[in-house]
Amino acid sequence: MTTAGRIQFDEWADLYAQRVETMRTSAVRDLFAAASRSDIISLSGGMPDIRYLPLVEVSEVVKRAVLEEGIAGLQYGDTKGREETKRVAAMLMRDQGIHASTENITITAGGQQALSLLGMTFINPGDNIITEGPTYLGALQAFSAFQPTVHTIEFDDDGMRMDLLEAKLKELGPRGAKFIYTIPTFQNPGGVTMSLGRRKRLLELAREYRIPVIEDDPYGRLRFEGEHVPCLRTMDDEVIYISTISKVFAPGLRTGWIFAPSPIMQKVNMIKQGADLCGSALNQVIAEHYFNDTDWRGTLNTMRERYQVRRDAMLAALDEFFPPEAKWTRPTGGFFVWVTLPKYVNTPQMLSVALEAGVTFVPGDGCYPSGSGKGMNAMRIAFCYEEPEALREAIRRLSLVIEERLALYRAFIDAGVLEAE
Amino acid sequence: MTTAGRIQFDEWADLYAQRVETMRTSAVRDLFAAASRSDIISLSGGMPDIRYLPLVEVSEVVKRAVLEEGIAGLQYGDTKGREETKRVAAMLMRDQGIHASTENITITAGGQQALSLLGMTFINPGDNIITEGPTYLGALQAFSAFQPTVHTIEFDDDGMRMDLLEAKLKELGPRGAKFIYTIPTFQNPGGVTMSLGRRKRLLELAREYRIPVIEDDPYGRLRFEGEHVPCLRTMDDEVIYISTISKVFAPGLRTGWIFAPSPIMQKVNMIKQGADLCGSALNQVIAEHYFNDTDWRGTLNTMRERYQVRRDAMLAALDEFFPPEAKWTRPTGGFFVWVTLPKYVNTPQMLSVALEAGVTFVPGDGCYPSGSGKGMNAMRIAFCYEEPEALREAIRRLSLVIEERLALYRAFIDAGVLEAE
Repeated sequence: MTTAGRIQFDEWADLYAQRVETMRTSAVRDLFAAASRSDIISLSGGMPDIRYLPLVEVSEVVKRAVLEEGIAGLQYGDTKGREETKRVAAMLMRDQGIHASTENITITAGGQQALSLLGMTFINPGDNIITEGPTYLGALQAFSAFQPTVHTIEFDDDGMRMDLLEAKLKELGPRGAKFIYTIPTFQNPGGVTMSLGRRKRLLELAREYRIPVIEDDPYGRLRFEGEHVPCLRTMDDEVIYISTISKVFAPGLRTGWIFAPSPIMQKVNMIKQGADLCGSALNQVIAEHYFNDTDWRGTLNTMRERYQVRRDAMLAALDEFFPPEAKWTRPTGGFFVWVTLPKYVNTPQMLSVALEAGVTFVPGDGCYPSGSGKGMNAMRIAFCYEEPEALREAIRRLSLVIEERLALYRAFIDAGVLEAE
Repeated sequence: MTTAGRIQFDEWADLYAQRVETMRTSAVRDLFAAASRSDIISLSGGMPDIRYLPLVEVSEVVKRAVLEEGIAGLQYGDTKGREETKRVAAMLMRDQGIHASTENITITAGGQQALSLLGMTFINPGDNIITEGPTYLGALQAFSAFQPTVHTIEFDDDGMRMDLLEAKLKELGPRGAKFIYTIPTFQNPGGVTMSLGRRKRLLELAREYRIPVIEDDPYGRLRFEGEHVPCLRTMDDEVIYISTISKVFAPGLRTGWIFAPSPIMQKVNMIKQGADLCGSALNQVIAEHYFNDTDWRGTLNTMRERYQVRRDAMLAALDEFFPPEAKWTRPTGGFFVWVTLPKYVNTPQMLSVALEAGVTFVPGDGCYPSGSGKGMNAMRIAFCYEEPEALREAIRRLSLVIEERLALYRAFIDAGVLEAE
């Protein structure tokens, strides 16, 4: 074989752990490379738009951080994180109505490590876990390393459907799942927010079936309109709460946290020792200075206003350009809109055509457990990163790609070969 | 019960994953709290002494990093790390004689995450792995999350004993272990360096039994005397090489790396997506500036000279104060000395007495797999962090604690109740 020198035979193929077979890489991450083409408008990434951060001020913050606390910042630190950083996390939670003692907070490498550590703490191969469906694809990746059976519960405009959750819990029985994972506010990818009534019902059901709840809250501060809905954690001290500074300051600092009852935190901290010994003390010092010494609330307000304008632009463009067969959510905060197309449209296949047309999105199947066959006719589109005009153009381009598909199927339907939905 | 309000019953006890039962926290990490008492001299931590880093220069480096590359540094980054950071890793490896393409390098959150990711990539519960015994306790923690059976191979002054390794490989058979993990140069905790002859033999045996080798090389640049011994990776392209900037610049940046054949890296990168999405881009930018724009070699030389003076001080103090029954290694680089005491001395029990006497060390059992019963009469003492005078005083204090124990046992031996070793 003439290509033998270039194709690397994997002589280790029989040595990998079983988890490697069932895991998959994220289509989103794989898309980042493609999305660097300058003519492509990205609706795929959930990246905060930090272009407007006050960089000169931040540069002074980091300089001061090194001068004042450089030795502590550059040395190994506590596995659980710096006390001062935990105080910042406690302050951010207090704004959300959660009163936390720093003792039960652990600083993690972003929300992603929090998910990975919780997966590692709770999941044996084959264990049941419950999530919204669709849900955050990074959570599915984090959990899948520990080989759970993932049960997904649909949402509607009021969040996770409690009738479906109750039916699933009945099926699985008390203690029948390791945890219920939810993003109740401005869900990823749905953009929907769980109503107060459903939140109360969720907690009731979790108590009745004795299953822990993980509340993931990265977007809670990014509300554009309407009333704040209380966090699950404010209504039940046993909720495991995770959040991050990625969406309110900067993801590049990889600073998130877990706040949970102390027996759980003890296990999480033990697991974290093995995973990374400790997080970056320097990043924590920088985060402390940012939240203690700058007008971060003002900066965040500016960012939130920008996101709101973009959300408006995206929804207006969807109304203007998208075909009547498409349905989408109307988020009141966060980063994402979830679009559902007729079931004969295959969004994973459509992605390459969209790329050629200069627009990217996240095919919906990535937001469901691998192999479930769900989400193939759906997509996540993010309004957080592009300017309003670019968003309008992206939606226009995307609508043409969709129209092309629909036209074909409409012809089939007209010919009686396919049934209309 | 009147204390019910203070003792928290763990109602989740039946929900944790099996791995949680077999893992344990590191005595070293738990000691950090105790070691903050100012009258205690710590021989326990493997912390580089970064007090002499040029902080003003570093503060300018980080300020520039934010001004010039702030947006990239504060945003999400590539799971595998920044190309520029990988180039720094490649440069550091080139100094060690390893020629690496950046394509097969992934930047990790320190060497610890590298170990955790490799454990996650290879280990199913019950799988055999082979390590030196004693070995790095953080590696045992990282691997133990995936529930391997750990087989330890003793070392002598020339490193891991190949006769014992060969016997073990014979017992386990071809492909009978997932990997052989070794710290060949200035081993942690042993301080010993594997001879060139043994390195060659190790690679021969690994090939014969078709078992991957993980070479962990955090201390390779910290040689005080003698000839550099080539890295395993320079002699065999299939070796998985991991290192870190923790000991040559700063652990607080949590920047290490894995360099391995591309099929392995593909799996590692997939695993890493779930574990943390990406590392801190800001820390990577800072590392790039440090290694590209400052006289880091000069700074490292100064640090190495300090470590050498401390090694000399520790060995001199051991010669002066330690009893004839004690044996210890004489490292030519790195951070650690490994002390072996008569088998009736129990170092884990001795630790609290030593703490009272104002000195800490790592009891040897922590450097063996949990429950092995090994290392109970040994200890790791680090010379990296304290000044020469403090090291001398610490060894003097420690010798008194040991003498007290020995005196008791000598009396038993004299009385014929115990046998001399």
